[in-house]
Amino acid sequence: MTPYLPADVPAEYEKTFMDTFMEATGGSGRLMLFAGDQKVEHLNNDFFGEGIPLEDNDPEHLFKVASAADIGVFATQFGLIARYARDYNTIPYLVKLNAKTNLIPYEAKDPYSQQWLEVSDVVRFKAQSGLKILGVGYTVYLGSEHEHAMLREAARIVHEAHQNGMIAVLWIYPKGNFVKDQHDRHLIAGAAGVGAALGADFVKLKVPYIGGELDVDGLNEVTTAAGRSGVLCEGGNKTTPEAFLLELHRQIHEGGSRGNGTGRNIHQRPFEEAVRMANAIYAVTVKNASVEEALRIYSGE
Amino acid sequence: MTPYLPADVPAEYEKTFMDTFMEATGGSGRLMLFAGDQKVEHLNNDFFGEGIPLEDNDPEHLFKVASAADIGVFATQFGLIARYARDYNTIPYLVKLNAKTNLIPYEAKDPYSQQWLEVSDVVRFKAQSGLKILGVGYTVYLGSEHEHAMLREAARIVHEAHQNGMIAVLWIYPKGNFVKDQHDRHLIAGAAGVGAALGADFVKLKVPYIGGELDVDGLNEVTTAAGRSGVLCEGGNKTTPEAFLLELHRQIHEGGSRGNGTGRNIHQRPFEEAVRMANAIYAVTVKNASVEEALRIYSGE
Amino acid sequence: MTPYLPADVPAEYEKTFMDTFMEATGGSGRLMLFAGDQKVEHLNNDFFGEGIPLEDNDPEHLFKVASAADIGVFATQFGLIARYARDYNTIPYLVKLNAKTNLIPYEAKDPYSQQWLEVSDVVRFKAQSGLKILGVGYTVYLGSEHEHAMLREAARIVHEAHQNGMIAVLWIYPKGNFVKDQHDRHLIAGAAGVGAALGADFVKLKVPYIGGELDVDGLNEVTTAAGRSGVLCEGGNKTTPEAFLLELHRQIHEGGSRGNGTGRNIHQRPFEEAVRMANAIYAVTVKNASVEEALRIYSGE
Amino acid sequence: MTPYLPADVPAEYEKTFMDTFMEATGGSGRLMLFAGDQKVEHLNNDFFGEGIPLEDNDPEHLFKVASAADIGVFATQFGLIARYARDYNTIPYLVKLNAKTNLIPYEAKDPYSQQWLEVSDVVRFKAQSGLKILGVGYTVYLGSEHEHAMLREAARIVHEAHQNGMIAVLWIYPKGNFVKDQHDRHLIAGAAGVGAALGADFVKLKVPYIGGELDVDGLNEVTTAAGRSGVLCEGGNKTTPEAFLLELHRQIHEGGSRGNGTGRNIHQRPFEEAVRMANAIYAVTVKNASVEEALRIYSGE
Amino acid sequence: MTPYLPADVPAEYEKTFMDTFMEATGGSGRLMLFAGDQKVEHLNNDFFGEGIPLEDNDPEHLFKVASAADIGVFATQFGLIARYARDYNTIPYLVKLNAKTNLIPYEAKDPYSQQWLEVSDVVRFKAQSGLKILGVGYTVYLGSEHEHAMLREAARIVHEAHQNGMIAVLWIYPKGNFVKDQHDRHLIAGAAGVGAALGADFVKLKVPYIGGELDVDGLNEVTTAAGRSGVLCEGGNKTTPEAFLLELHRQIHEGGSRGNGTGRNIHQRPFEEAVRMANAIYAVTVKNASVEEALRIYSGE
Repeated sequence: MTPYLPADVPAEYEKTFMDTFMEATGGSGRLMLFAGDQKVEHLNNDFFGEGIPLEDNDPEHLFKVASAADIGVFATQFGLIARYARDYNTIPYLVKLNAKTNLIPYEAKDPYSQQWLEVSDVVRFKAQSGLKILGVGYTVYLGSEHEHAMLREAARIVHEAHQNGMIAVLWIYPKGNFVKDQHDRHLIAGAAGVGAALGADFVKLKVPYIGGELDVDGLNEVTTAAGRSGVLCEGGNKTTPEAFLLELHRQIHEGGSRGNGTGRNIHQRPFEEAVRMANAIYAVTVKNASVEEALRIYSGE
Repeated sequence: MTPYLPADVPAEYEKTFMDTFMEATGGSGRLMLFAGDQKVEHLNNDFFGEGIPLEDNDPEHLFKVASAADIGVFATQFGLIARYARDYNTIPYLVKLNAKTNLIPYEAKDPYSQQWLEVSDVVRFKAQSGLKILGVGYTVYLGSEHEHAMLREAARIVHEAHQNGMIAVLWIYPKGNFVKDQHDRHLIAGAAGVGAALGADFVKLKVPYIGGELDVDGLNEVTTAAGRSGVLCEGGNKTTPEAFLLELHRQIHEGGSRGNGTGRNIHQRPFEEAVRMANAIYAVTVKNASVEEALRIYSGE
Repeated sequence: MTPYLPADVPAEYEKTFMDTFMEATGGSGRLMLFAGDQKVEHLNNDFFGEGIPLEDNDPEHLFKVASAADIGVFATQFGLIARYARDYNTIPYLVKLNAKTNLIPYEAKDPYSQQWLEVSDVVRFKAQSGLKILGVGYTVYLGSEHEHAMLREAARIVHEAHQNGMIAVLWIYPKGNFVKDQHDRHLIAGAAGVGAALGADFVKLKVPYIGGELDVDGLNEVTTAAGRSGVLCEGGNKTTPEAFLLELHRQIHEGGSRGNGTGRNIHQRPFEEAVRMANAIYAVTVKNASVEEALRIYSGE
Repeated sequence: MTPYLPADVPAEYEKTFMDTFMEATGGSGRLMLFAGDQKVEHLNNDFFGEGIPLEDNDPEHLFKVASAADIGVFATQFGLIARYARDYNTIPYLVKLNAKTNLIPYEAKDPYSQQWLEVSDVVRFKAQSGLKILGVGYTVYLGSEHEHAMLREAARIVHEAHQNGMIAVLWIYPKGNFVKDQHDRHLIAGAAGVGAALGADFVKLKVPYIGGELDVDGLNEVTTAAGRSGVLCEGGNKTTPEAFLLELHRQIHEGGSRGNGTGRNIHQRPFEEAVRMANAIYAVTVKNASVEEALRIYSGE
Repeated sequence: MTPYLPADVPAEYEKTFMDTFMEATGGSGRLMLFAGDQKVEHLNNDFFGEGIPLEDNDPEHLFKVASAADIGVFATQFGLIARYARDYNTIPYLVKLNAKTNLIPYEAKDPYSQQWLEVSDVVRFKAQSGLKILGVGYTVYLGSEHEHAMLREAARIVHEAHQNGMIAVLWIYPKGNFVKDQHDRHLIAGAAGVGAALGADFVKLKVPYIGGELDVDGLNEVTTAAGRSGVLCEGGNKTTPEAFLLELHRQIHEGGSRGNGTGRNIHQRPFEEAVRMANAIYAVTVKNASVEEALRIYSGE
């Protein structure tokens, strides 16, 4: 698949952008994003507790998995990358530029997740370190009273990434007291359109469900509304590999999604299993593997 | 018609500004603005649902129509332009620099629609891409507790546009708990005057109505109060072509408006019909067509 | 009268400042300021309605009057000046740098009227356009919870104006829930002192009244408290020429004011009468005319 | 006394800083600060009314006194200095960089007194004008919800002053709903410590009182807690010269204060008396005069 | 121990960073941080009162101790360092870049402790003064409505420190109405992870306790969750040397902490004793001393 080259990528960065996009998507136009930003978003809930292997409590677990597995990009905060990347310098990184904790409930106060560092900091870091930093990411909470600040930061980040030949991924989640159902297809389709208007290369969204089941028609509304911005489906809570990979396959082949952003379903497993699960997800997302093929990869056959 | 050249257009950009103004208005001094910024403003409500053709859900529909039809400018967000413009590089664009979603009701919290990108970003983008970017746009919500921030951004945007030979369009809507009737002629005339004080080339306003009927006297108060800033009447909800074109003709020829900003009445139609509707609107606005001539264009006769 | 040259006017701008001050005040040290900033402040209330001539609804009326009459400066927003000044390039302008609408009552929310453009924008505009821009203006609402932001902007504007050889006029009005009587002499004297502390060349204030009558003693407290900053008395609602000119004469010769800021009492009249009224006000303010002489000017004798 | 040279005074400004400190303190290390910033802080209350001589209403009174009397520095706003300093160019000035009015009660809203101008503006003004500007000042209201903004501005101002060889004086007052007793010694000692942590050369504080009497032990806690930052005792309401000078002497010689900041007790007197009162205060503060000697100076013997 | 060199330390500063890290940790990788920032945080409560020696009221006491004792770094505000450092120029300093007072209870208003000075100010100060400034520090209050502002400032500070070869220490404390138990291990582990995501070299945290006893298992969750960022245990209220040193030893050798931040347990003692206590803490932290050896140091044997 040939990527749509955004018009705000300047001539001198066209090749860089195309190469970056191709590398991130394995030439498929679809992105397997290994999400490792939950140290802030969920504090230690995702990393220590019942059903979570002890090794997940050490942040290095994320880097070990990201380094050993097939992934599109490993998305995490700048500071964490800086602390481990000299020892894990082959990982394709995506710098997540904002984050917030879960201490304040969304019902109590509207969320604002502010940008931590500038795209220019990432560009300089990439040049200084020689690391394989493919892109930047940012979360927007629509419906928050701070929506305006996040829309502005998101628009700037996407444009500045393109100006420097990098890809931009936006996480777009409606939140706050005026949002009734986060899994409503029409609302998610609206978020997809906002991602398109912001110029995102990929937009990570909630998945539309009806009664707990994937709403394929709804997902088609969403992925069409996103236009040329690829929709990444949120991985969500840990579930069985069978259920996960089956739904992932349907999201892509029936719903038109262009990838996924998965964290807990990978890292909340022991190292070897986590790597195999990541590989299975990558195979479905990028290599057009069937669910059966993917399950064989997961099983290590 | 000769445009009034704003005094803050510097000598080296005078010709550019005049040419731009003439191109945008087809030499008529009147602007047909095809509004395509609703992906953020109305989320997916305007693009998917009962009575809306399925093709409208794909944002490319807007570009197809804007590319094939007679229009003055196509107004939408920077990111969306960046994503499609390499394939639609003949469209006259106007970059809408702010946008907000409709998730928070105006009664619940006063709106603030913040500027996403700077005029200098648009100027650089125009130079890098060679696209036909004729101007910039911005929405001001008067009566909001954030009015001050939007007035400042609007004033800066208009001046910076002029400094670079581009035209500036302001959407000015009184909103918030102290606004009783958005369609009150005297209030709209006030908004028109604010547009003039901000130096806008065109100001997009609500239309004064009495009992659902166009208030022609009221519109004359409005268009006079706007002075040399041309008043663009809001297109509003989708209606019949007959009703739409008749009112448009009266707005211009009886009410003194200098154009219109129309979105849903164009894009909520299948491609061919949308193009014909846009052409009909353009004919009335720019080519002095009669309602009958315009309806013939719409009918494809 | 020799102006007191502020110490923050640098040596290379001393002559410019002195010439500007002399031109604005006709060599008298007193300023007749024609206020034309109400398009934003009062929306269309001052320009259309019972008792207002229809021609006042067109903003060009202000420029016609300002161009034909004797005035010190014509104060209005940057954008409006930019739109008309190529055709009215002999008017001595003062750029009013902030403005707000009247949609939110002062009791409901504390006012913040933010600066729209920078003094450096005005300086560049003046150089590019060759217009006779003599100074800048700004309104401060004391007692608002946003007082701190306006005090800062005001202090910067005055200093930056002086750094560039221009005069600075501040409108200072106590507002908000803690202000009981806007016409209290002691409160107005406080506002006068704030203007002095901000370094204003002229400070436009409310007029102290007792029972609807000019409080001459009170005005002396005010004008003394202002020190070397000249006090401009607010023109207020439209009244009869006789009453207006008599009070103006008393303000200056009994109360120590150094001019006035008048809008509605001028522009809410047909062109010829408006010009004559402005000339009468100018004669009293700058030329030491008696009330009788001024009334003869108003009458066109 | 040799001043402690702050380590953030760069080598090229060491002599300037030492000379400035010595000049401001008459070589004593103690500062007599003539406070003339009340035009904003107290509006016209301190300058006009019962028991205040009429001449105090004219701000020039402050400059006349500051010019004729022995003082360490005359502290007032930039704008006021700019307006009078060409005629009063021998006064040692200290530019007070923030100010607020008293219109909003502290109980109603937490105070924020924002910085008006930058230290770099003062440095440029000093160079352009050749005036004897020895330092800058700033007020911090601890306990306000805006405390963070004022702490940041204060820290920057002190450091920037030192970078340019000027002294910095901080006014530090706990205010707001959580402050029970402004004259509590332990609270004032805390404010003193904040001044030390901010790097102030002098910190102006409330005076600890017990039952209306100077709390000498308490003042020793305060002046010790301030470390090398000299404590200036607030002058407060006007009182008798005897009471004032006696307490001043005790503050210094029993309580360890390093000066005072006095306004009303000087300027609320006729010119000659005001000068003699200032001279008496200066004699106690800087020249180690006894109370008797100081009273003779006040009496003009 | 070899420090993990953060990847955002540029090549030209690698040696500086390594040397700095080694110096601060005595080559052990563990940091003994002498905390002297309470002049602002606790006002005068920690320095004057029952059980506190009088000499502690003078801020110079901190510098005397820091100068005479074995310490890793002495952490305090810029202004205080500037005022004493010419006389105490052998101390290894860490500049604490933000601070707030305790006047507003956390339950009443969410805390915001804003950055006072920029890292670039510290870098310039270090170069100008030649002082041994090893790093910078900053406090983040998670769960505050201002969390976003502090996360941004913290991320910037850590990166800018690394860009200049300095170490960065973050104090991370969950606070506000949604935080139930500050000593909950899982919550502290979350704070540790935030420190890792921000890229801190060391993160100072609350200590997990169960029923007043050190929760060793909990501390292991915390120190593992922090990854390569070293955990510093908060020193807390003054206690007996025996209890303090025993717990410190267990924190390090059983809990995996990499140091401590101690203020009151050092400075709230007379000079000689304070120095011996600091030396004892240093011996345990950096020199692998046993509790018995440390107590002998404290006793001066």
